[in-house]
Amino acid sequence: MNHIEIIDVKERVEALNEQNAADVRAYIKRKKVYLVNVMSSPGAGKTTTLVRTINGLKEKWRIAVMEADVDSSVDARTIQVLTGAKVIQLHTGGSCHMDAGMTMEGLMTMGIDDVDVVFLENVGNLVCPAEFDVGADLRVEILSVPEGDDKPLKYPLMFRRADVVIENKMDAIKVFDYDPAKAEERIRALNPDCVFFAISALNGEGFSSWIDYLNYKIAEKLK
Amino acid sequence: MNHIEIIDVKERVEALNEQNAADVRAYIKRKKVYLVNVMSSPGAGKTTTLVRTINGLKEKWRIAVMEADVDSSVDARTIQVLTGAKVIQLHTGGSCHMDAGMTMEGLMTMGIDDVDVVFLENVGNLVCPAEFDVGADLRVEILSVPEGDDKPLKYPLMFRRADVVIENKMDAIKVFDYDPAKAEERIRALNPDCVFFAISALNGEGFSSWIDYLNYKIAEKLK
Repeated sequence: MNHIEIIDVKERVEALNEQNAADVRAYIKRKKVYLVNVMSSPGAGKTTTLVRTINGLKEKWRIAVMEADVDSSVDARTIQVLTGAKVIQLHTGGSCHMDAGMTMEGLMTMGIDDVDVVFLENVGNLVCPAEFDVGADLRVEILSVPEGDDKPLKYPLMFRRADVVIENKMDAIKVFDYDPAKAEERIRALNPDCVFFAISALNGEGFSSWIDYLNYKIAEKLK
Repeated sequence: MNHIEIIDVKERVEALNEQNAADVRAYIKRKKVYLVNVMSSPGAGKTTTLVRTINGLKEKWRIAVMEADVDSSVDARTIQVLTGAKVIQLHTGGSCHMDAGMTMEGLMTMGIDDVDVVFLENVGNLVCPAEFDVGADLRVEILSVPEGDDKPLKYPLMFRRADVVIENKMDAIKVFDYDPAKAEERIRALNPDCVFFAISALNGEGFSSWIDYLNYKIAEKLK
């Protein structure tokens, strides 16, 4: 009984989310904005990666960040201080993911008339954010070396739906039992079109091709 | 409108979960079983920590493990091979956490007449598992060094509700900007009674006091 009720609600929530995601897509198309949904486990390096990414893009594009968090504004302040980008903090009120409605609310509250690229830093979680399309142009999953190369086996939906997987903390690979070839093979089995970048957000290793790729994708949409 | 509906359902789900958690508590009391709920981010080292913990306890107690996963049975096989413990795999069917009803189902399906201690390895997630009391005797959160000492600020509910926080991957502390004193201070601000252990599941550092503590807690309940 309980299960049936939950599933009913879930279906309605999902249908509503799909509709909201279509609205987000139409809205950012009209506003000429490229939206990137950045996902990962807690502590995989979303914020540090974003800081370096924004600093690599900001001469060319006007950038804003929506920081989603269950609670706290730690990352929003960090990003504002270190990049100067326009930042808005979104509290999900206990929810473990962003949905398309919350994304639309964030875009409208922040204002995107003066912006080319918006990064949404999702809640740190490999399960729920994968289920909710927020209407982004690019879905990025950051997998950090200390988490292990078996994560694609355990959280397949996240890796199946990502357009890009960034392997982060490559500087720490010598102290962890992580095999990039194994991780990539497991991801490709789920998602043959996935694009990979191996980086260290700490020392900047691997960023130039990631930045080139983003410049290409952004220009492709906004040209 | 949508928000109101979701909250209604959430309240009903929570009330049902509280009732199921009370049932789990009564059941494991009658069966003389000590239940440990092990939570963490993906890749923080739940499985490796469990393997070493079980091997440290198994001469004294009969141990079983319930492996909760969204999908896959990787960890269940690992634990069975490396410890010989009784293991059951629970697939949550996409759900990002275990609840008390699923826990009761797991205990009954596995059978606990020949068991003293059950470890529940929850889904890797710092948000949802914190919200659902599964009726365990001990809630353990494993925080790994690479995730960073700011995690208590970002996922406060998990750290507020943990009885024990285990800091894992201490062997890697030299390559990460992680300050145990800062992490512990942040956790104590949320949860003054929290008990800490600093370990390396890789090399065994710090396990002897963690095992002593568990032996003490288990004996206290089952004596």
